[in-house]
Amino acid sequence: MAYSFVSHLYCPKCQNTYSADEKANVCACGSPLLVSYDYAGIKAQLTKETLVKRKPDLWRYHELLPVKNKENVTSFGEGMTPLIEMKNLSEEYGIKTVWMKDEGLIHTGSFKARGSAVGVSKAKELNIKEIAMPTNGNAGAAWALYAVKAGIKSHIVMPLDAPLITRKEVYISGANLYLVDGVISDAGKIVARSVKENGWFDVSTLKEPYRIEGKKTMGLEIAEQLDWELPDVIVYPTGGGVGLIGIYKAIKELMELGWVKKDKFPRLVAVQAEGCAPIVKAFNEGKRESEFWQDSKTSAFGINVPKALGDFLVLEAIYETSGCAIAVDDDTILSEQQLIAQKEGAFICPEGAATFAAIRKLRESGWIKSHESVIGLNTGMGIKYPETVEADAPLVGKEEAIY
Amino acid sequence: MAYSFVSHLYCPKCQNTYSADEKANVCACGSPLLVSYDYAGIKAQLTKETLVKRKPDLWRYHELLPVKNKENVTSFGEGMTPLIEMKNLSEEYGIKTVWMKDEGLIHTGSFKARGSAVGVSKAKELNIKEIAMPTNGNAGAAWALYAVKAGIKSHIVMPLDAPLITRKEVYISGANLYLVDGVISDAGKIVARSVKENGWFDVSTLKEPYRIEGKKTMGLEIAEQLDWELPDVIVYPTGGGVGLIGIYKAIKELMELGWVKKDKFPRLVAVQAEGCAPIVKAFNEGKRESEFWQDSKTSAFGINVPKALGDFLVLEAIYETSGCAIAVDDDTILSEQQLIAQKEGAFICPEGAATFAAIRKLRESGWIKSHESVIGLNTGMGIKYPETVEADAPLVGKEEAIY
Repeated sequence: MAYSFVSHLYCPKCQNTYSADEKANVCACGSPLLVSYDYAGIKAQLTKETLVKRKPDLWRYHELLPVKNKENVTSFGEGMTPLIEMKNLSEEYGIKTVWMKDEGLIHTGSFKARGSAVGVSKAKELNIKEIAMPTNGNAGAAWALYAVKAGIKSHIVMPLDAPLITRKEVYISGANLYLVDGVISDAGKIVARSVKENGWFDVSTLKEPYRIEGKKTMGLEIAEQLDWELPDVIVYPTGGGVGLIGIYKAIKELMELGWVKKDKFPRLVAVQAEGCAPIVKAFNEGKRESEFWQDSKTSAFGINVPKALGDFLVLEAIYETSGCAIAVDDDTILSEQQLIAQKEGAFICPEGAATFAAIRKLRESGWIKSHESVIGLNTGMGIKYPETVEADAPLVGKEEAIY
Repeated sequence: MAYSFVSHLYCPKCQNTYSADEKANVCACGSPLLVSYDYAGIKAQLTKETLVKRKPDLWRYHELLPVKNKENVTSFGEGMTPLIEMKNLSEEYGIKTVWMKDEGLIHTGSFKARGSAVGVSKAKELNIKEIAMPTNGNAGAAWALYAVKAGIKSHIVMPLDAPLITRKEVYISGANLYLVDGVISDAGKIVARSVKENGWFDVSTLKEPYRIEGKKTMGLEIAEQLDWELPDVIVYPTGGGVGLIGIYKAIKELMELGWVKKDKFPRLVAVQAEGCAPIVKAFNEGKRESEFWQDSKTSAFGINVPKALGDFLVLEAIYETSGCAIAVDDDTILSEQQLIAQKEGAFICPEGAATFAAIRKLRESGWIKSHESVIGLNTGMGIKYPETVEADAPLVGKEEAIY
């Protein structure tokens, strides 16, 4: 019984292949690398009936993950996050079924934990001792804390404006933390320079192949949680876009395994903020790559990514599934965040709120039909962004009552 | 197939019984009420084999929960939180096995979600329209947000010094939020007065019988996650003590069902802060009830409870299981919090850190033996307490590198 059926890495641009047993960053051509598996081998070993008895974390899909030796799995029980039916939002939006996949219920309170769980575990397997990365906050927190458990030293560079709590998460982990007065691209350049000089392993978004594998488990879980009947639409807040690429890859792999129907791909939607919408611009212009977005700005900090290395993979996922890309403005994001708390009792992050604001807009425009089923990804807990919420409240005397 | 096998409520002090189909607060004698079930009925319907196929949330134990009609279940997928082996802490403490039950991975990031999930669902079943409660923060946030989903209006009174993020959670839910310049007992008095004047339902700790039922699922999960082999010791940070009472009740019920061995009860440990340790004082004096703790103060805000209504139940659980009660000081709590982040990659709350500091002390004193297995409850995410952590980091220029 193999723990993993990983076979090799391949380049989606030039089709070059690489070993999954050696350290790899990007292809010689500069493209991110993707992971391939022995799908026939998986088919022969893994059944849906086996799966149901496994622990409710993302390692239940270990045959479809790149870690070969179970001993290298570095886990805080991440995965199998709830898929919650949002009946009040369904009514509000006029859509038959609206689910929220709640990625707040995971180590560090952000979906970034999935990428770091698999990425750090594989780094441990490849005997990597020091990693470095730029981050908008949540990814840095997740990688720094997972790295501790794996015995790996990490170096994190973060914009000054990133959510303060993520800075504290990195700090308490004991990682080397640096700040830059700029955006994530500036942090990325510092990291690129530093890994060369120090011989650290660069784990920037899509500069290592395994983060996608962690993120793809969102797609695997969605399929399993819906008893292998996929929804009509999946909506995802898009910065680096790894989650969308991962969900697309997951569904293709499930089709390859024959676990979901081949004829019906959910339409994938990339949501961005109006202050940083390079993927949306490229989509609207029918292009297959995006351009650097100047002076990007949004309160949904996690999706402030002016140019994603995997932009062409995000756009491919959108085009191939008849999906779309859509931008929402910051005021709309914050009012949707409040509405969801007051209608559904869920305090979600601004990026997640952007997702639901987009679902509302897409229903209004008719792109989503009233009879359809839609999943919105909430990528993290609202409590990581306290500055988006006020807290006015009257003071009561100890001898008083309230009415 | 009954969804619930709830039979009635009973008073653990005077043995009076009450219906579980009508609103109930405390017994006429003033004691909290406990929930009883038809255990023979459960035995006949529910098997461990059935359980394994159910969704990974606390409602998998619905036969052992008080909600009769599934339609009233108000859920965000809470429960089946990870039980994580802490190998580095085992080594650090010199204890064979140390697990952390991580209650941060739940709606609102705090174990309070369990009590509110079941309490709010049952309130909905009983047709309750408005609830009121005092809170140290996390419980208020959880009850306010669950109440939204159930269509119940809530009134929350919170000390001024409670964690700011919990104030924001209550605020964004649209609940009526009030602050008091005092401790939770002061908030409790305001609520007691207000429920009388307004006809609201009082859901203060142990003033309604169903919160314990939610909390007891921690005990059910621990047993299931360890394949029905209980650990030697379970350590729990104790404010109101509902979790400890719940875990004790859970294990007794599992013994009644014959799902765990009757001869070996885990020793239950109540951990308090030195600045607020009424249960510890009572335990040290061999008493069965605690006294009000004057001028209580601790950075582990959730366990700042000067006098718990269920103190006698907490002490009973300790005495009956040959457990103990122990206090740790605030400096030790904060240094243990940091150590756990840097040894295990887990950023836990101060209350959770108190738990692990207590495990260390109990091993040092020999009360826990080196060959034993110990579970520590981390009751919430560290990110809810940003003020406990610094975030110093150097600024790097955009054209620089780091070393």
